[in-house]
Amino acid sequence: MTTAILALAFDAYGTLFDVHSVISTCNQVFPEKGPALSQLWRAKQLECTWLRSLMGRYEDFWQVTESALVFACRSLNLSCPPATRQKLMDAYLHLDSYPEVLQALRSLSTYKLAILSNGSPRMLAAVVENTGLRDVFSDVISVDEVKIYKPSPRVYELAPRHLKVPQDAIGFISSNFWDIAGAKSFGLWTCWINRFKAPEDELGSRPDAIIGSLADLSEALRKADSSGATR
Amino acid sequence: MTTAILALAFDAYGTLFDVHSVISTCNQVFPEKGPALSQLWRAKQLECTWLRSLMGRYEDFWQVTESALVFACRSLNLSCPPATRQKLMDAYLHLDSYPEVLQALRSLSTYKLAILSNGSPRMLAAVVENTGLRDVFSDVISVDEVKIYKPSPRVYELAPRHLKVPQDAIGFISSNFWDIAGAKSFGLWTCWINRFKAPEDELGSRPDAIIGSLADLSEALRKADSSGATR
Repeated sequence: MTTAILALAFDAYGTLFDVHSVISTCNQVFPEKGPALSQLWRAKQLECTWLRSLMGRYEDFWQVTESALVFACRSLNLSCPPATRQKLMDAYLHLDSYPEVLQALRSLSTYKLAILSNGSPRMLAAVVENTGLRDVFSDVISVDEVKIYKPSPRVYELAPRHLKVPQDAIGFISSNFWDIAGAKSFGLWTCWINRFKAPEDELGSRPDAIIGSLADLSEALRKADSSGATR
Repeated sequence: MTTAILALAFDAYGTLFDVHSVISTCNQVFPEKGPALSQLWRAKQLECTWLRSLMGRYEDFWQVTESALVFACRSLNLSCPPATRQKLMDAYLHLDSYPEVLQALRSLSTYKLAILSNGSPRMLAAVVENTGLRDVFSDVISVDEVKIYKPSPRVYELAPRHLKVPQDAIGFISSNFWDIAGAKSFGLWTCWINRFKAPEDELGSRPDAIIGSLADLSEALRKADSSGATR
């Protein structure tokens, strides 16, 4: 027997919101260093979520993001006094959504739509508000509730609990491959948005569908439903 | 009351053994690509240990190292057929120890000495044998026993259990800052070997001592013992 997908949970950072839209603010503060700073900031932010989770030393995503910024500036020999740090952190509340996001989400209105993100509740509320997406989602779910980060199965378990839909009727969408691996390993149907033609990681599980942007999600869901691949 | 340090547990990869000594084999197989391949291979290897641990999907370090190699080659568009892969993996069993290691460890013979490593038992046995360090250690402890990777506290807990010395009488030495953060968070006295003048990570704990190479460890231990800093 196959279950149709009834709800969709979206990763936020990198999937709906472009984390590298901080580059322009980085460039204002540190001319020409924007891309390097943004890259290292993001990499350290993720590393920090994994390490703190494994150590059992959760701090929320705002704190982790600030720690990662401090480290990244130190690594690149950039002096980052409190006012500068605040300006850069503020950019994280004003990330752009990817251009296709709003329209694609509106076309998926037959599904229950949610965000399932590492972000702290305050950060998520701000970025959803600032990108005009507030009305689109029935639930904005933060890992803060379980005090551990993705890809812990305790995070993905929040989706069926909040959405009140069985686990096998939930599709999870992320552009982070390791996030897809975690969701798949937990038991959700998964769709990887591979915007930049990245190679697949080797983490023991593969996405159920792969698309180039959110604009192709409807089609991927149709295919999955008609082939019974959504289980 | 302060407890003197009685036993020392060393991280293996990057601390005793130079993971980038695979560069020469990488260069033989993929001319001029050695440094880039080695760098990405190591980064992905670590990422994979953290992600698999968080997902609760442990695979041993040999498998993780091979998966990371496959990913790194794919990322760099390097074709890596089975024979090439085997040759590169074999290099991991023949890593060089850093030049000062043997002499420094011999000078620490008043302490009980152990390795506490992510490596699988077979990998550790091979590299310890091949670098002539077999007789130096009373214990070679692998995370394989608990099926989770550093920096989980379950790993550091193996040190007092195997060494049969109280936790607060154990010093832990690593050149990986996140490994130091994990050991410190668990409650060991920690010494970070910062060979390449790297900036400190922001993970909520700092090492008790910082040295530039293992040759300075005796001195760091003397200072710590005389100041009572070893708790």
